[in-house]
Amino acid sequence: LGNKLWGGRFVGNTDPIMEKFNASIAYDQRMWEADIKGSKAYVKALQKAGLVTQNEMEQILTGLDKVFDEWSKGEFKIKPGDEDIHTANERRLKEFIGDPAGKLHTGRSRNDQVATDTRLWLRDAINTLKELALPLISTMVERAAIEILCPGYTHMQRAQPIRWSHWILSHAVALSRDVERLEDIRKHVNVMPLGRLVLCICNTEIFFHSPELKFDSISINSMDATGQRDFVAEFLFWASMCLTHLSKMAEDLILYSTKEFSFITLTDAYSTGSSLMPQKKNADSLELIRSKAGRVFGRCAGFLMTLKGLPSTYNKDLQEDKEAMFDTYDTVHAVLQVATGVISTLKVNQPAMEGALSPDMLATDLAYHLVRKGMPFREAHSCAGKAVYIAESKNIHLSQITVEDLQTVSPLFDKDVSSVWDYNRSVEQYSAPGGTARSSVTSQIEHFRTWLQAQKQKP
Amino acid sequence: LGNKLWGGRFVGNTDPIMEKFNASIAYDQRMWEADIKGSKAYVKALQKAGLVTQNEMEQILTGLDKVFDEWSKGEFKIKPGDEDIHTANERRLKEFIGDPAGKLHTGRSRNDQVATDTRLWLRDAINTLKELALPLISTMVERAAIEILCPGYTHMQRAQPIRWSHWILSHAVALSRDVERLEDIRKHVNVMPLGRLVLCICNTEIFFHSPELKFDSISINSMDATGQRDFVAEFLFWASMCLTHLSKMAEDLILYSTKEFSFITLTDAYSTGSSLMPQKKNADSLELIRSKAGRVFGRCAGFLMTLKGLPSTYNKDLQEDKEAMFDTYDTVHAVLQVATGVISTLKVNQPAMEGALSPDMLATDLAYHLVRKGMPFREAHSCAGKAVYIAESKNIHLSQITVEDLQTVSPLFDKDVSSVWDYNRSVEQYSAPGGTARSSVTSQIEHFRTWLQAQKQKP
Amino acid sequence: LGNKLWGGRFVGNTDPIMEKFNASIAYDQRMWEADIKGSKAYVKALQKAGLVTQNEMEQILTGLDKVFDEWSKGEFKIKPGDEDIHTANERRLKEFIGDPAGKLHTGRSRNDQVATDTRLWLRDAINTLKELALPLISTMVERAAIEILCPGYTHMQRAQPIRWSHWILSHAVALSRDVERLEDIRKHVNVMPLGRLVLCICNTEIFFHSPELKFDSISINSMDATGQRDFVAEFLFWASMCLTHLSKMAEDLILYSTKEFSFITLTDAYSTGSSLMPQKKNADSLELIRSKAGRVFGRCAGFLMTLKGLPSTYNKDLQEDKEAMFDTYDTVHAVLQVATGVISTLKVNQPAMEGALSPDMLATDLAYHLVRKGMPFREAHSCAGKAVYIAESKNIHLSQITVEDLQTVSPLFDKDVSSVWDYNRSVEQYSAPGGTARSSVTSQIEHFRTWLQAQKQKP
Amino acid sequence: LGNKLWGGRFVGNTDPIMEKFNASIAYDQRMWEADIKGSKAYVKALQKAGLVTQNEMEQILTGLDKVFDEWSKGEFKIKPGDEDIHTANERRLKEFIGDPAGKLHTGRSRNDQVATDTRLWLRDAINTLKELALPLISTMVERAAIEILCPGYTHMQRAQPIRWSHWILSHAVALSRDVERLEDIRKHVNVMPLGRLVLCICNTEIFFHSPELKFDSISINSMDATGQRDFVAEFLFWASMCLTHLSKMAEDLILYSTKEFSFITLTDAYSTGSSLMPQKKNADSLELIRSKAGRVFGRCAGFLMTLKGLPSTYNKDLQEDKEAMFDTYDTVHAVLQVATGVISTLKVNQPAMEGALSPDMLATDLAYHLVRKGMPFREAHSCAGKAVYIAESKNIHLSQITVEDLQTVSPLFDKDVSSVWDYNRSVEQYSAPGGTARSSVTSQIEHFRTWLQAQKQKP
Repeated sequence: LGNKLWGGRFVGNTDPIMEKFNASIAYDQRMWEADIKGSKAYVKALQKAGLVTQNEMEQILTGLDKVFDEWSKGEFKIKPGDEDIHTANERRLKEFIGDPAGKLHTGRSRNDQVATDTRLWLRDAINTLKELALPLISTMVERAAIEILCPGYTHMQRAQPIRWSHWILSHAVALSRDVERLEDIRKHVNVMPLGRLVLCICNTEIFFHSPELKFDSISINSMDATGQRDFVAEFLFWASMCLTHLSKMAEDLILYSTKEFSFITLTDAYSTGSSLMPQKKNADSLELIRSKAGRVFGRCAGFLMTLKGLPSTYNKDLQEDKEAMFDTYDTVHAVLQVATGVISTLKVNQPAMEGALSPDMLATDLAYHLVRKGMPFREAHSCAGKAVYIAESKNIHLSQITVEDLQTVSPLFDKDVSSVWDYNRSVEQYSAPGGTARSSVTSQIEHFRTWLQAQKQKP
Repeated sequence: LGNKLWGGRFVGNTDPIMEKFNASIAYDQRMWEADIKGSKAYVKALQKAGLVTQNEMEQILTGLDKVFDEWSKGEFKIKPGDEDIHTANERRLKEFIGDPAGKLHTGRSRNDQVATDTRLWLRDAINTLKELALPLISTMVERAAIEILCPGYTHMQRAQPIRWSHWILSHAVALSRDVERLEDIRKHVNVMPLGRLVLCICNTEIFFHSPELKFDSISINSMDATGQRDFVAEFLFWASMCLTHLSKMAEDLILYSTKEFSFITLTDAYSTGSSLMPQKKNADSLELIRSKAGRVFGRCAGFLMTLKGLPSTYNKDLQEDKEAMFDTYDTVHAVLQVATGVISTLKVNQPAMEGALSPDMLATDLAYHLVRKGMPFREAHSCAGKAVYIAESKNIHLSQITVEDLQTVSPLFDKDVSSVWDYNRSVEQYSAPGGTARSSVTSQIEHFRTWLQAQKQKP
Repeated sequence: LGNKLWGGRFVGNTDPIMEKFNASIAYDQRMWEADIKGSKAYVKALQKAGLVTQNEMEQILTGLDKVFDEWSKGEFKIKPGDEDIHTANERRLKEFIGDPAGKLHTGRSRNDQVATDTRLWLRDAINTLKELALPLISTMVERAAIEILCPGYTHMQRAQPIRWSHWILSHAVALSRDVERLEDIRKHVNVMPLGRLVLCICNTEIFFHSPELKFDSISINSMDATGQRDFVAEFLFWASMCLTHLSKMAEDLILYSTKEFSFITLTDAYSTGSSLMPQKKNADSLELIRSKAGRVFGRCAGFLMTLKGLPSTYNKDLQEDKEAMFDTYDTVHAVLQVATGVISTLKVNQPAMEGALSPDMLATDLAYHLVRKGMPFREAHSCAGKAVYIAESKNIHLSQITVEDLQTVSPLFDKDVSSVWDYNRSVEQYSAPGGTARSSVTSQIEHFRTWLQAQKQKP
Repeated sequence: LGNKLWGGRFVGNTDPIMEKFNASIAYDQRMWEADIKGSKAYVKALQKAGLVTQNEMEQILTGLDKVFDEWSKGEFKIKPGDEDIHTANERRLKEFIGDPAGKLHTGRSRNDQVATDTRLWLRDAINTLKELALPLISTMVERAAIEILCPGYTHMQRAQPIRWSHWILSHAVALSRDVERLEDIRKHVNVMPLGRLVLCICNTEIFFHSPELKFDSISINSMDATGQRDFVAEFLFWASMCLTHLSKMAEDLILYSTKEFSFITLTDAYSTGSSLMPQKKNADSLELIRSKAGRVFGRCAGFLMTLKGLPSTYNKDLQEDKEAMFDTYDTVHAVLQVATGVISTLKVNQPAMEGALSPDMLATDLAYHLVRKGMPFREAHSCAGKAVYIAESKNIHLSQITVEDLQTVSPLFDKDVSSVWDYNRSVEQYSAPGGTARSSVTSQIEHFRTWLQAQKQKP
């Protein structure tokens, strides 16, 4: 049983397949830094509580620094029996300093340690993701060119003219909510899961206040602290929601980069070609972004299913949290950067966008024209619908119907209807907060500039 | 095409299967109150903007009150063509007041309306769920009988003695986090999705400040406002997490109510029998609670899959939000009440719990005994493990090993080892915050009393 | 406790919320026919085993016919205490015939009954769904107009010319696999879960051979028979896969019905308009089809999560199978019909499709042209790529590059390159099985005609 | 752009993060053998079609053998630019044999290749999993010790006495269904996705009949062949169902290995200890098995979400299939072996099992006793229920109620009631097929022996 931490009473051998099945070192070694950081703070608390001497503490701290050093340089060698990062680090510490290493685990179990490490790792990961999300939002804001008009779509059908900037900001808003949610989650993560700490009653506080650890709060109940992974599940769902937002943006952009739309062109850096068809230029970057929402949500679904119906406290099933968390983090980490690259380099094809505007997209304005003359909206909508039908029947543009023909629909129509057929005038109507008029979009941009500034200044 | 709101340009007939497939009235009628409330506030804003006269506004308000009245009394009759609650209410309003009804939709689409109604409905639903979660937590706190000891389990194996109250409070903690998360979500929900509002630029503010609606904030971008349902997805995940917490508690209690454990007995009100086996008394209530985590998460998974890769703004796919939201709400609504009933009435079998304590659960204390005499914990753990092995070999209790035999394991063992074999002394060691000592559990209870008080006083 | 089947030993009252939470009658009443059918076969087996007399059997059969009759006419009244369809039917039977009704449950529990009813209901439901899937496939085959060319897309980018019929048949193939899988599932469903049958050892065979029931096989182990619902989960996944297939087809068609593509026009019967924008015609039918893949998979995900980690045999958690199964069935039932309607009525816009073909889609043919002259494909692909680049730089069509310019890329180019620029010739190259040449598509159509014929003749 | 297969027309540089995001070589290298196998068969078909010479074919075959050799020996070096296994193998081939390597891709794209490789790899993987599932079933059958009685549970409450062998075989039945389903899936997987094959019309058949490949059938439509991954999704769901079955078995065994049940003891090889509590022996192997159902279903859920709403044919999103497939395979591969180890080595504690039988578990038999005397079952059930209530009130066993007391419940009770209190007699009643009587269980065992024999002899 080599250096297993729990081997005292076991006499049989472990099945090698079982050994591999059980071991988490292949992936939990990513938490080496959090694990050492936690141990350093812990031994200081043990010393304050009189459970290790000043000298032992110093030996342990020095030893831990050596272990840290090996990991930093990529020189740490995992050995058979190192079933997890905690075992590996303790084993190495013992090789460096001998017996005092055995005192480090006084009053804590691996269940405490793994909960602590996971929380520390995830908290830092969240900080990193936030740092990658902000430039993406910032890029969107920078690319919100206010002059360009394009069709706004609902149901993928042309609806009303909008500003291109209004489209891009609609995605920035969703992402900014994700950033704000991430901060809420950070608070739920950054809790000290103190665990049992049998002998060192007095120094929970010491451990908590360790400047290395910077926890926001202490958990309220030790069984909850070691047995719950809701903070991981919450992070997995956050990532699913964030990537679902980006899958929506990616879908729009894939559509806009088709030959048929031709609204945007991706730079070669974010496109790939075909090994068969030489003319192809595919928006692979966007397709990958779109696909990752599935991958990440799969991790969330899988982990929640694993949690369902588990009894209280630690069960080995919880070990599934790590790979789900790491893979999700890596995925979001890559997606945010690729998305930033795509948005910052895509070419906007203004003529194609404006060329796609057509008079039928002003049918609502035609209805409002009648409303302004006193007709109830529902009736005006019906009149405008009839005008659309006339235009389709005659195979002409809505703007080309004669006033006479319009008057068969409603006598309220008059020459002044010609003022309706102006896309710029149309968008300028939407000057309420959140609208697509120049002033409204400018306000949105200002909102984001202020918000980004505030986010960057947060700790 | 009857009274369809969009029928002007359509000439073909709708396939009746398609009609049913498309219609949402069967379920979205639940939002009748929110829909009318929103319309009343909206017409007042239209009047302020000069788009309806004072007189028209009054007619509309009176008409809406009549519609409200019919719904309240269960007398509202849905007619063919009422494809959704918005259409149904407008149709009925028109029957009451005639043409002025047609003015109500000026400047808003059903996409705006459905977003508004959904947010209002869900905000109120969240309030209700919070009101049901608090008594459940409160019941747990009331039933946290501090005197009773029982085995604490990890991996479903007896681990260390704990207080029963410590177990029950561990579930209360998880639930209290759920309540706190619910409040975060409430803020994300209670946002005015102002929409297009073409003609009434000036009165977004008026609508927002409507005392009927009580929104917390205004959405930043109109395309985001009508096209995003992340606030629904977030609620669905919240429910999944909350019921996963309760599935854990239910699993524990199902286990504890087996003949083999016999720690608790459910009252007949929350048990059912067998149609075949007369002696059976099954914990159906708990099994149902356990099962519902799956149901609700299925709704979350389904809705997120529906959202994945959707293009921007409104697409009919979003209609899937309603049934997922209603079913999830109803499920959590029932689960919280049934759980409260189960917890408040279950009988705790103290002798069985205390009878299940056994000296091997004090093996960690045996190790600490050696630690106190200066042995490093890792070595002490190994010695205690050897003692366990001796007891198992001799088929005696750990506490029955002679001092002589213990000394073969470590010379540090002495007569004073007898002090270890005391369950009360054992739990009292864990007096750190979050521990299972009397003082720690008392603190937890006080924490909850304060917290509950604060929650109840929130608006 | 009224007429509860298990009430003998219970003395407390049930909480009304619990009662509702526990009851399944609201939805499992859909299985009334299967329940009565099963009971009729069962009482005959009891009679053969001497457990009811000939006279009692006849009373029970007559009584069950009366119950059947009430359900058929919609006159069955559910009463308080009818917690499930089994209880309701037995209660009503007793009202009709008195005491002998109590003999019907000899040797079977509700766990047996519900397993039997569910299997019978689902088997019939599967038959119905197959009957709805075949016309959809048949419609696709009928609409596979072989003359029309259109762009084939990969990555939503124009790739190579194909026949429109090739596109539509690609979806028919996927659906035909779904039909074949459904038949496999039918076999797994149509198994008699014989259950305990304590006293009537001899008549398992009698029950199995009941002409009313038509089971394919008998389950091998009684604990498995009453405790497994994998056949339900398998059906839920089948539906998820089938609707995911249709979500792909719907996505294509939504794209093809945009103004920008304009390849198809949906008939008004499967479109809806906008309550705001009079010109809109939205492909709501297709959006709903696309969305339902999520809904149905959510049911599958939820049910699997409920099953995860459940102990053996019956647990109340299994009750979740019904609503998942019914909702999934109803959804697929509607989707198949709406999809058939959409496909059979959509207008194909041949000029738009053929107008979307462009010479760059023949770049692969240009490479093959060089391959035929002896150049390795990889080099030829690179040369064709350079030609594409020349055309893009000069802003001309690929077919417009002069032979001289082509010769700067490869000296193998000659005048005969002009033969490449022919879309019909291009598609005709793909005459391998499964290709897009006329002969290959004709073979596909013949394959489907034969396959459909064979499917219809199956029992 | 190095050796990218599609680089001809691209001039910009790829973002290194994008490059990594896009590359699949890190995981798809697992398919190296299938990729080479497919290429060897393909070049032979090209030669038959006159597209490569005999000499070129031989060069390519020799070159591919060298590439194969490097992979076998673990000496293949992945270079920058090897974005996937197809590119890597072609690049290496070119290094070995120069220009002729460029002819290998004539008429096929990577989309064809990846579909071919994935199908070949998965087909072989399925064979391996079947080979691991059979010994698990066989082990269950071998351990079906027919003599041992134990409580049968429903709702985790003691229900009726059963044979232990009946319990273990109930899980074998579920697994045997999984094996049979796997064979169905194998057929869906083992289909040649012929693809475009432009120039080599004639040799689709040649490719199909390659003895190296052993496909069962040819795909019907080329767009379906390269754009569908339903066969992967089906495998992922199969794995989810199989592991859900094993999660149920694991849950039972975790329960049975608690101190409170003590029905089984896991061998040390499949247990682990606690780093804190020296006395702990945890069933980690079973907990891991239980947890993996979640992990694998997460992969299924994620992949289906990725597929939802994708347009036809190849989109880069499909690349998500590989990691899901590999991880799922690896997980099931380990679980089946660990489960076999657990079952083959666990110690069954017969005295504990039989000690857990109690007279109240014969209450149904008491009811049948009355039924045999002519009482309708429903009434008899009620009488037995009253007897249970009497025993509980008097705090005696059901078997200890006096005949006099029983007669207060029903005058049909007589001295002969004593024959009821015999567990062996009770189980022997269930001799119908699938029952728990000796003869029924023996039949089940024989069924499995025959079935296993038949499975092993399948190709």
